[in-house]
Amino acid sequence: MRNLSEATLTDAVLAKLAGATDARFKQIMMSLIKHLHAFVREVELTDEEWLTGIEFLTATGQKCDQKRQEYILLSDTLGVSMLVEAINHRKPSGATQSTVLGPFYVPGAPEKPLGADIAEGVEGDPTYFSGCVRATDGKPIAGATLDLWSTDGQGCYDVQRGADAPMRARGKIRTDANGCYSFWTIKPVSYPVPTDGPVGRMLLKMGRHPYRPAHTHMIVSAPGYETLTTHVFVEGDRYLDSDAVFGVKNSLVAPFVRHEPGVGPNGRQMERPYYTVVYDFGLNPV
Amino acid sequence: MRNLSEATLTDAVLAKLAGATDARFKQIMMSLIKHLHAFVREVELTDEEWLTGIEFLTATGQKCDQKRQEYILLSDTLGVSMLVEAINHRKPSGATQSTVLGPFYVPGAPEKPLGADIAEGVEGDPTYFSGCVRATDGKPIAGATLDLWSTDGQGCYDVQRGADAPMRARGKIRTDANGCYSFWTIKPVSYPVPTDGPVGRMLLKMGRHPYRPAHTHMIVSAPGYETLTTHVFVEGDRYLDSDAVFGVKNSLVAPFVRHEPGVGPNGRQMERPYYTVVYDFGLNPV
Repeated sequence: MRNLSEATLTDAVLAKLAGATDARFKQIMMSLIKHLHAFVREVELTDEEWLTGIEFLTATGQKCDQKRQEYILLSDTLGVSMLVEAINHRKPSGATQSTVLGPFYVPGAPEKPLGADIAEGVEGDPTYFSGCVRATDGKPIAGATLDLWSTDGQGCYDVQRGADAPMRARGKIRTDANGCYSFWTIKPVSYPVPTDGPVGRMLLKMGRHPYRPAHTHMIVSAPGYETLTTHVFVEGDRYLDSDAVFGVKNSLVAPFVRHEPGVGPNGRQMERPYYTVVYDFGLNPV
Repeated sequence: MRNLSEATLTDAVLAKLAGATDARFKQIMMSLIKHLHAFVREVELTDEEWLTGIEFLTATGQKCDQKRQEYILLSDTLGVSMLVEAINHRKPSGATQSTVLGPFYVPGAPEKPLGADIAEGVEGDPTYFSGCVRATDGKPIAGATLDLWSTDGQGCYDVQRGADAPMRARGKIRTDANGCYSFWTIKPVSYPVPTDGPVGRMLLKMGRHPYRPAHTHMIVSAPGYETLTTHVFVEGDRYLDSDAVFGVKNSLVAPFVRHEPGVGPNGRQMERPYYTVVYDFGLNPV
């Protein structure tokens, strides 16, 4: 293994995996090395470009902390997250389609009663979500959990407001005996993915805008069913056809209906306009 | 650009580069996206494997600091660095072959006079390097700079001894009017690349040893010539055929000749055995 050339290097690196005992790891690394080398050969990457790449990868890692995941953002904006999602969640008929998790999920959101406001005190237009969770055979799923999160009315996630910012516009809701749910939150708005890091600079250089169409995130789960990670998008949003992370599916777009002030759903007295959205989720059994 | 599937996603991501004004950047990103997606498709990467990848890339970035470059180590151990090197430095006849820079180069090593010891006080076997730097047409190059660095006699670079460790076994030497150079240093020893980070764990899982055969690093430069980044390897080293970073070329392996104590080169009184190595460098004009 000396005097390796452009022609012999890749095989030499692959041969080094002969001793790997984890067959799946070996398969992944062999494929990764082949494609990585093919990329370098195809573009004939220069020394300076290689170093720019090293610096970009380093800066992307160093931008990550407990509340910021720049590598997930990179994966999202290069379409890798949606590709992994498409490969792993080929949904059967009757099941809600999934989309990207995104970099802003935080475990441990508080559980709230049915009909509660998960965004109490958060600026934005009040919005009432309701609907049911059903199995693909139509059977209602009681006790399913909706783990919900979204931006505030200014397009900002709580975790973007600083390291010590409290949890806001996040909550867990469980379906009732009929598999139905309801909660108040605020109407999500379209927003740019974070542009103050390496990925933002990459998007700019690519000539791309950083916006995502407005959406509410949810992970819907119930014992015996495949966990669903998805969004409900706001119908009419200007970025539905150019989502920076390629996540929009028509079946996930719902009308957010505007209402004038008055008595709102579950008897709440509304002093300003509010919205309602009805969305049913379908889960496939595992 | 909605309802993107496994079949349509890659083209949708590539189409987003339509607005990129830097043609070379666009070419590189398009190739990168195609190969990255092809890898994900080929292995059908699962959600968990994707997350393991995100965590690995993040940890690799976070292992980097002013004195540690884990991404260069990753590039080196996956053979990418040698591939970039091979593509960019197709050396003409008479020019010394290049090899990897490695992650331990530090700019600003002190300039020393000809014949000086660049590793004074560093544990290890004293070794005297001498030779000439010539152009590919045989003409000696006066005033060429050799920027030199190596491990100490325990296989450790100065920067691995802690954030505040002083610079050791590093120095710059210039050739004389005849293009010749000489300096004392210590005999390099084979050593493992750092295994306390993500790349070390990757190598272990790959079933690979982390060792590099003993070598002294140098960047040889002179106005009007292509800068040469290379090593001189110690003949007989047990790892010459299994270098963890694929960097060995036969033309870079030299005998390190052992001598008994006595009067050494440039009149130095040697109280213990020492080594001498003669190596000539060839630079190609730019």
